[in-house]
Amino acid sequence: MKLLSYRHGERQHFGALKNGAIVCLSGQADGAYPDIKSLLSDAKGIDWAQQVLATRDPDLQLADVKLLPVIPNPGAVWCAGMNTHSHYDEAKHHMHLKEKPAKPILFLRNTASLVGSGQDLEKPALEKAFDYEGEIALVIGRRGRNIATSDALFHVAGYSCFNDASARYYQISSSQITAGKNAFRSGGFGPALVTPDEIDLGTMRMTCRLNGQEMQSMGLDDLIFSFAELISFISEFAWLEPGDVIVTGSPSGIGALRNPPVLLKAGDQVEVEVTGVGVLVNGVRDQKLDVVAAS
Amino acid sequence: MKLLSYRHGERQHFGALKNGAIVCLSGQADGAYPDIKSLLSDAKGIDWAQQVLATRDPDLQLADVKLLPVIPNPGAVWCAGMNTHSHYDEAKHHMHLKEKPAKPILFLRNTASLVGSGQDLEKPALEKAFDYEGEIALVIGRRGRNIATSDALFHVAGYSCFNDASARYYQISSSQITAGKNAFRSGGFGPALVTPDEIDLGTMRMTCRLNGQEMQSMGLDDLIFSFAELISFISEFAWLEPGDVIVTGSPSGIGALRNPPVLLKAGDQVEVEVTGVGVLVNGVRDQKLDVVAAS
Repeated sequence: MKLLSYRHGERQHFGALKNGAIVCLSGQADGAYPDIKSLLSDAKGIDWAQQVLATRDPDLQLADVKLLPVIPNPGAVWCAGMNTHSHYDEAKHHMHLKEKPAKPILFLRNTASLVGSGQDLEKPALEKAFDYEGEIALVIGRRGRNIATSDALFHVAGYSCFNDASARYYQISSSQITAGKNAFRSGGFGPALVTPDEIDLGTMRMTCRLNGQEMQSMGLDDLIFSFAELISFISEFAWLEPGDVIVTGSPSGIGALRNPPVLLKAGDQVEVEVTGVGVLVNGVRDQKLDVVAAS
Repeated sequence: MKLLSYRHGERQHFGALKNGAIVCLSGQADGAYPDIKSLLSDAKGIDWAQQVLATRDPDLQLADVKLLPVIPNPGAVWCAGMNTHSHYDEAKHHMHLKEKPAKPILFLRNTASLVGSGQDLEKPALEKAFDYEGEIALVIGRRGRNIATSDALFHVAGYSCFNDASARYYQISSSQITAGKNAFRSGGFGPALVTPDEIDLGTMRMTCRLNGQEMQSMGLDDLIFSFAELISFISEFAWLEPGDVIVTGSPSGIGALRNPPVLLKAGDQVEVEVTGVGVLVNGVRDQKLDVVAAS
């Protein structure tokens, strides 16, 4: 099942893809499931959604809606930094790294930094080095704490694509990269949350394209800490809750470390494709300064 | 005005202190203001609250309620790391720091890491070095982006106390301190949000006590980046929204850098007092491992 969060008219909904169109699920739930997070929070939610999807004809075309971040209201968006062998190798000289991380390197993204597929990423006015980072995102479906790696994937509700676009000036302005990873509208997340029954982790790859040209590509063997290890580590100190997101790390090929650098500018288009999930598409725009004056 | 978020029975409310007791404000709003964030999001909210407070007798005693984090549902909790001269001086040798930060050092806290005054902080099962950090928190009341430092304090709805309790093992497990700053129930936030008309920034001090003994004390002149500079910097890359929180940095005296170290253990009590705001009180407990088995 491919779950989507979207806006139609003034209302926020979620639904699932069927024959390339959308079956609205939130509208069939009598208010019980206003969003995907609430669906995942109910142990019977996914079964209910499967049943509705099996019997109902599509309500909307994709062109009728504005896609939102797959989870518009996550409790937490945990992101793994420097979590691929290939990105470590490309960055180690620039960043004076002596050895691969012994534990996952984590930062958080705030919700306002997220946009859905089809929406523009926004380069902050003072940022000179705005960059793409294609990644695979997990969404948690089952609550847990101190989760063993052997149990970890049972806590995953599904997979999605993520563009962890980075404001490099802010990222390197201090020892902590949080500022550069939290620019308004800098994180593409979507298009869909795809349940594990439709996913083959053995062949999963992530590919990132800029204006149609491939810039990054990875298989799961490139990860320093696996999906299960990330889940297990975070759950040592925090509860993982339904709707929480884990963004698992970007491979080599980022723009800032190319020679010459390839940086994002207004009008660019970035695609992040994950096998079995789909393609996240985001344009790029400059910060809308007029909005500041109006607020 | 001193605003409080609290639970009474099964319901979550907010109110304001009057003669040491609570006037319930959410119950007087016909659903318009379910929480402090929604009150702050309405330009007329604070005036409305002042009017209700002036005319209504208290509804509840403090002993009748469980205090929640002052903002239980913040859009973002921005925290400043290494933001006092005194903490820089005590830490620079241990951390091999060469110079004071040129830009604010930021990390985020997730909502589930927050607890109200009167609630226990929780030391994760595998953490050996759980530590207090007394700080002053700001809450944003007016939306803004690219805010000049000269305008910044007009965006502040009020001030509160914060205990940025830190799981030092996780904090130093990688280059990014986010993991150690996001343990479940590790951030005390309260007791009240005190509006600027009751605050004298010229005499504001933060004092942190462990089991009654003073461990930290600071005035605002200890801050490397002032309240206004933190607001201005964050707003370069992110919108600041009503209910967003900025935790402004801890002074010298943290437990992990004492000789011998003074670390938190179950049964300890930490108080964070801010002049004009009040006292945040949190006990300490070990992680409840039985909850894991039951979930």
